[in-house]
Amino acid sequence: MRIVDLIIKKREGGEHSREELQFIIDGYLDGSVGEEQISAWLMAVYFRGMSDQETAALTDIMQHSGDVLTYADVSDIIVDKHSTGGVGDKTTLVVAPLVAASGVPIAKLSGRGLGFTGGTLDKLESIPGLRVDISGEAFRAQLNNIGIVVAGQTANLVPADKKLYALRDITGTIESIPLIASSIMSKKLASGANKIVLDVKFGSGAFMQQPEQAKELAKAMVKIGDALNRQTVAVLSSMDQPLGYAVGNTVEVQEAIDTLEGHGPADFTELCLTLAGHMIFLGGKALSAEDGYTKAKMLLENGFALEKFYQLIKAQGGSLANGLPEAEFTASVYAARAGIVQAIDAKTIGHSSMLLGAGRETKHSIIDPTAGIILRKKVGETVEQGEVIAELHYNTPYAYRLDEAVKAVQDAYVIDEMQPKILPLILDIIE
Amino acid sequence: MRIVDLIIKKREGGEHSREELQFIIDGYLDGSVGEEQISAWLMAVYFRGMSDQETAALTDIMQHSGDVLTYADVSDIIVDKHSTGGVGDKTTLVVAPLVAASGVPIAKLSGRGLGFTGGTLDKLESIPGLRVDISGEAFRAQLNNIGIVVAGQTANLVPADKKLYALRDITGTIESIPLIASSIMSKKLASGANKIVLDVKFGSGAFMQQPEQAKELAKAMVKIGDALNRQTVAVLSSMDQPLGYAVGNTVEVQEAIDTLEGHGPADFTELCLTLAGHMIFLGGKALSAEDGYTKAKMLLENGFALEKFYQLIKAQGGSLANGLPEAEFTASVYAARAGIVQAIDAKTIGHSSMLLGAGRETKHSIIDPTAGIILRKKVGETVEQGEVIAELHYNTPYAYRLDEAVKAVQDAYVIDEMQPKILPLILDIIE
Repeated sequence: MRIVDLIIKKREGGEHSREELQFIIDGYLDGSVGEEQISAWLMAVYFRGMSDQETAALTDIMQHSGDVLTYADVSDIIVDKHSTGGVGDKTTLVVAPLVAASGVPIAKLSGRGLGFTGGTLDKLESIPGLRVDISGEAFRAQLNNIGIVVAGQTANLVPADKKLYALRDITGTIESIPLIASSIMSKKLASGANKIVLDVKFGSGAFMQQPEQAKELAKAMVKIGDALNRQTVAVLSSMDQPLGYAVGNTVEVQEAIDTLEGHGPADFTELCLTLAGHMIFLGGKALSAEDGYTKAKMLLENGFALEKFYQLIKAQGGSLANGLPEAEFTASVYAARAGIVQAIDAKTIGHSSMLLGAGRETKHSIIDPTAGIILRKKVGETVEQGEVIAELHYNTPYAYRLDEAVKAVQDAYVIDEMQPKILPLILDIIE
Repeated sequence: MRIVDLIIKKREGGEHSREELQFIIDGYLDGSVGEEQISAWLMAVYFRGMSDQETAALTDIMQHSGDVLTYADVSDIIVDKHSTGGVGDKTTLVVAPLVAASGVPIAKLSGRGLGFTGGTLDKLESIPGLRVDISGEAFRAQLNNIGIVVAGQTANLVPADKKLYALRDITGTIESIPLIASSIMSKKLASGANKIVLDVKFGSGAFMQQPEQAKELAKAMVKIGDALNRQTVAVLSSMDQPLGYAVGNTVEVQEAIDTLEGHGPADFTELCLTLAGHMIFLGGKALSAEDGYTKAKMLLENGFALEKFYQLIKAQGGSLANGLPEAEFTASVYAARAGIVQAIDAKTIGHSSMLLGAGRETKHSIIDPTAGIILRKKVGETVEQGEVIAELHYNTPYAYRLDEAVKAVQDAYVIDEMQPKILPLILDIIE
C-alpha cells in the first residue's frame, strides 16, 4: 500500500477498506506517513465524504490508538453523555446526578473549555475543595460506592484524535461531518461507556450553526454507535440563546443546584429531563424514554438527584458548607430601548463572559471561577427602556475589560416591537 | 492574513487575490507556512480550481521566486518550445535547428527524463563529446554567434515550482490543470523566452490521456501567456503511438538527423514542421504559421536546418566524425499473428525502452545512450505472422531484463483484422 495511492483513491471518490484506514492512521502515528500527506487526505475527505462503513471503521481504529477503558467489572451498563458544547451548558451537573439517582451508573470523563466559558471540569472545580483528578482504583471505588464519577482524563485516550485534530485545526479540515463524528465518538467509545446519549447543539452559539448540519452530524454519530454496538441516541437542541440564565462557573453551579432543587430555568430543566430520560431508558431503569423522563422528574421533585449531586461533591473532596464563592463586583447592563427580546446571540454572550475571566482566551489562561453573567431577560420577554437585562459578575484584575464585556452583552440582545418566533428548544431525537 | 483562512477560502470556492497567493508562496518558501498547510490548500485547489486571474498571478509569483533570465541584450525576440512529453519525442532536435536556421534565435533550457526514455539533454549527450553545461557568457556568445543553444538549467529557476512539485507528487495533487499549467509556464517565463510554442500531447503515452484534458491544459497555458504578455500558441498532438520509429537516445538522434536530411518518418516530420512554422511566425520571420511551415519545409529541403544542427553540435563540443555509437546487441520482436496494427501503446513501449537502459528507473539510474527500440511497423501497417515488428538495441549489463522488454513490446502491439481508425496526429491549434 502506498499513501499517495490512497489519497488519490479518496480524491476520486473511492471508498477505503478498513485495512487502508488502518494503514493511514498507523502510518500517521508512527511517522511513516507525513503530515503533508494526511492533510491532503483530510481535505479529500472533506470534499468526498466517507461512507457509513468507512466512518465506523475510522472511529474504531482511532478508539484503539490508545488506552481503551472498561468498567465491565463494576457494571454491565455504563451510560455516558456528550454535548457538542454551547454557552451556559451546565447540563452534566444536573443530568449526571439525575441518572445516577435512578440507579444507572455514570462514569464521566469531562474536558475543560477553550474560549467562551469553562468546561464541566472548570465548573466543578469552582466548588471549594472539589478535585477532578480521580483515576484508577479510586475512580472504580467511587463508581461502585455512589454510582457517579465526573473526572478529568488521565489515561492516554485516542492519541490519534489529538494528533489529527491539531492537524485539522491548522489545515482548514475541521468542518467535515465524518471527521467530527469519528473524533467525538472515538473518545466516547474509549471512555468505557456502552450506552451514549449525545446532546447535539445548533444555532449561533454552537459549532453547527444550521439545524440541518447538526442533524447530519447527529445521524453520523448514531450510525457509528450502532455499527460498533454501542446504543446511541442524539438529542438535537437549540443554542440560539444561552441555556438557562447563568453563564460562567460558580454561577452555573448555583443554577444547576437551583434546577436540582426544582426551581431552575424552564428551558434548561426541560433539556436535562429529556437527556436524563433517554439515559435512564438506555440504562435499563425505565420502559421508554418518556418513562425515563417521568422518573427523572420524580427524582428532581423528591430531592434524590440533589442528594446524589451532594454525594458527588463530597466524594470528590468538595464542600458547600460555606456556600459558593461570589465575585467582588457586579455591574448591570440596561436595555437600550423598550420592546420584546427577539434574540440573544449566544456566541457574543460567551465572548463577554470570557472577557470577564470566566473562560480561557488561550490554552494557558487561568479561569476566574466567580466571574460570569446572569441574564435577567430571555427571548420573548418584554423589557422597558433602561431596565436591567443582565448582570455581570467580576473581580478587579479583569475590570479593565468590563466596558468591552458590557458592550458585548448589549450587542447580543436584539430588542424590537414584534412578537419573536420562538423555536422549540428540542428539535428532534435521532435514535 | 492567516494561512488557515486562505485554505478555507479556497475550500469554499473563493478566488484568491494576488496578495493572498504571494503570501502562500512566500510563506511556503520561507517556512512560515507548513507543508501540511500547503498540501491541504493544493487539494482544495484540485477540487475548486482557479480562475484565469489566479492562475496567471500564481505563475507570475512562481516565476519570480528565483532567477529570471533575459536575453534582451542579444535579441528582442527569443522563441522557446515546450513539449508535455511523450515516447519517441525528439522534436526539439529537429525543431530548434529549423527555427534557428530561419533566423529566429532559440535559447532552450531542457531537462532530463525520469522514467520512459531520456530527456532532450540525454539525447544530445549521446552524441560523443557534446556538453550541455553551458551558461552565462558562453551561453550568450553561442546564442549571438549561431542563434541556437540547447543547455541544461544552471540558474536557480523557479525554486517554488521545484518545492511545490515534489510536494504535489507525494500528496496526490499533481492532476490539477491550473497547477500543471502554472508549473510549466513559470519555468518557460523564467527561461527568458517571450514567444512560446507548446506541444501538448494526449493519448496513452502522454500525461494527459484524453484530448479534452489536454485541450483544457493547452487553453490554460495560452491564457497565462496572454495575461503575462508572452505570446503563446499550443499545438495539440497525439501520443497514442510513439512518435516516429525510434525510441531511445542515439537512435532518436539518428532519426532526427534522418528527418533533417528530409527522409524522416512522415508523422514526426509533419509535427516538427507545424511546430517550427508557428515558432518562425511568432519570431517574425513568416507572415503566418502556414508561411512559417512552408519556410521550415524549405529549410529541410535545402539542408540549412541540418547545417544548423551540425553547428549546434560543434559549438557544444560534440562530434559525429566517427558516427553515432551503436549498441552491441539487437533482438527482434516478431508479430504473434497476421493482421493490421491497430494500436501501439506508447506507454508500454516507453517502459520497454527503460528496461533496456534507455530511460531512468530512479533519479540515480544511469542511462545507456545506445539502448533503445526501433519500431518496424506502425499503426495501419499490415504484418505477417512472425514478421519483425520491432528491434531492440541493448548492451549486456542490461540483458537480464531483455525478456521483459521483448514481452512489453509484444504487449504494446495490438494486431487484428479490422482497418483501424487512424486519428490525425495534430488535433487542434490553440492560440
